[in-house]
Amino acid sequence: MSTKPFLLYTAPTPNGLKVSVLLEELRAVYGSAVDYDVHKIDFSKNTQKEPWFIKLNPNGRIPVLVDRSRNDFAVFETAAILLYLERHYDTEKRFVFDEEGRPDEFSEMLQWMFFAHGGVGPMQGQAGHFNRFAPESIPYAKKRYIDETKRLYGVMEKRLANRDYLAGPARGTYSIADINVFPWVRRYEFAGIDSVDEFPNLKAWIERIGSRETVKAGLAIPA
Amino acid sequence: MSTKPFLLYTAPTPNGLKVSVLLEELRAVYGSAVDYDVHKIDFSKNTQKEPWFIKLNPNGRIPVLVDRSRNDFAVFETAAILLYLERHYDTEKRFVFDEEGRPDEFSEMLQWMFFAHGGVGPMQGQAGHFNRFAPESIPYAKKRYIDETKRLYGVMEKRLANRDYLAGPARGTYSIADINVFPWVRRYEFAGIDSVDEFPNLKAWIERIGSRETVKAGLAIPA
Repeated sequence: MSTKPFLLYTAPTPNGLKVSVLLEELRAVYGSAVDYDVHKIDFSKNTQKEPWFIKLNPNGRIPVLVDRSRNDFAVFETAAILLYLERHYDTEKRFVFDEEGRPDEFSEMLQWMFFAHGGVGPMQGQAGHFNRFAPESIPYAKKRYIDETKRLYGVMEKRLANRDYLAGPARGTYSIADINVFPWVRRYEFAGIDSVDEFPNLKAWIERIGSRETVKAGLAIPA
Repeated sequence: MSTKPFLLYTAPTPNGLKVSVLLEELRAVYGSAVDYDVHKIDFSKNTQKEPWFIKLNPNGRIPVLVDRSRNDFAVFETAAILLYLERHYDTEKRFVFDEEGRPDEFSEMLQWMFFAHGGVGPMQGQAGHFNRFAPESIPYAKKRYIDETKRLYGVMEKRLANRDYLAGPARGTYSIADINVFPWVRRYEFAGIDSVDEFPNLKAWIERIGSRETVKAGLAIPA
């Protein structure tokens, strides 16, 4: 019987990978205290819509984190999972800003998290749908979502003009503001965007984060 | 010269109204400590894309809250504004769960906030676009976003089956989880959804929240 503290229901999508990246970051710092089992969800079988899964996430989506060490408390919505993990397990505040001592930086981090959660994620997702999956080719919709995704990349590009990370003072500090959006942005090609050469700061940010061994490990989940 | 503690840049859209509803709720409890000036942004003049506004919100969107009592700290992204106001000004925790004492309820609230921020808002927004504003009629896209918005309403309907509010124990407690999504859901007709009769619990929730005098006041901003 497993004694790992977490059970992660996931799949290799940008939303799933956000959580495995943070778990690998935390595991590199705190070790077995944040170890986790992985339950891969098979979309082809629509497992995420089965009644047992709907009990964990009424929205029928991955990822879901179950915290065995806190009465099997289940958390859905990626950004809520990141904040939950930070709240309870990142005792040294390595990937978050201290809300008590640095409330403005914490708020700044949240602002960029919501920017990604309501903007980059859903809009890039729609770009991917119309450019890859839709049963008919609809030029208007393809262009609409590519344009909007690029507009949002442009906002990040300006933000990163004189900083390395999205939130925090001076050049910024690597945090869940970055982890929350990186797995989306790195997959720009999948959404129908050929290149990010026009966004050199964003491109460097993708490479900066992608070069972390912990991030590479998180992106390989589920195996 | 105004001495009101806040300046709210807004417009009468669902995202703008989330913030004015919470401000009216807070004002009814705390009085002038949370009073605010309103600066209406005129989309027809593209004011939200002007350089002075981009300094407040790099994404060029309303609403933005400026906190004059904390060095003009500016907050963008609606849900981040709600959490900021709760963090600093709802000292009795009337519209939020205490993260220290009730962390699981706080997380539950966040989960429903992100559900709305990444789901109901953007998808209902796309439904409105294709059903009202798009220069060409695209049946596939109209149906896609109506269907997805209704699916999300169905998730809320099930959640509200035996409760009055989205988060909190027993029948739930009115909180920013509700305020964050109510201004979207109440405008279902604008998005091209004729009726919510098939979602009776959701319909009752809309009426329950909409009947609050504070909510009515918030929905009337900007005048």
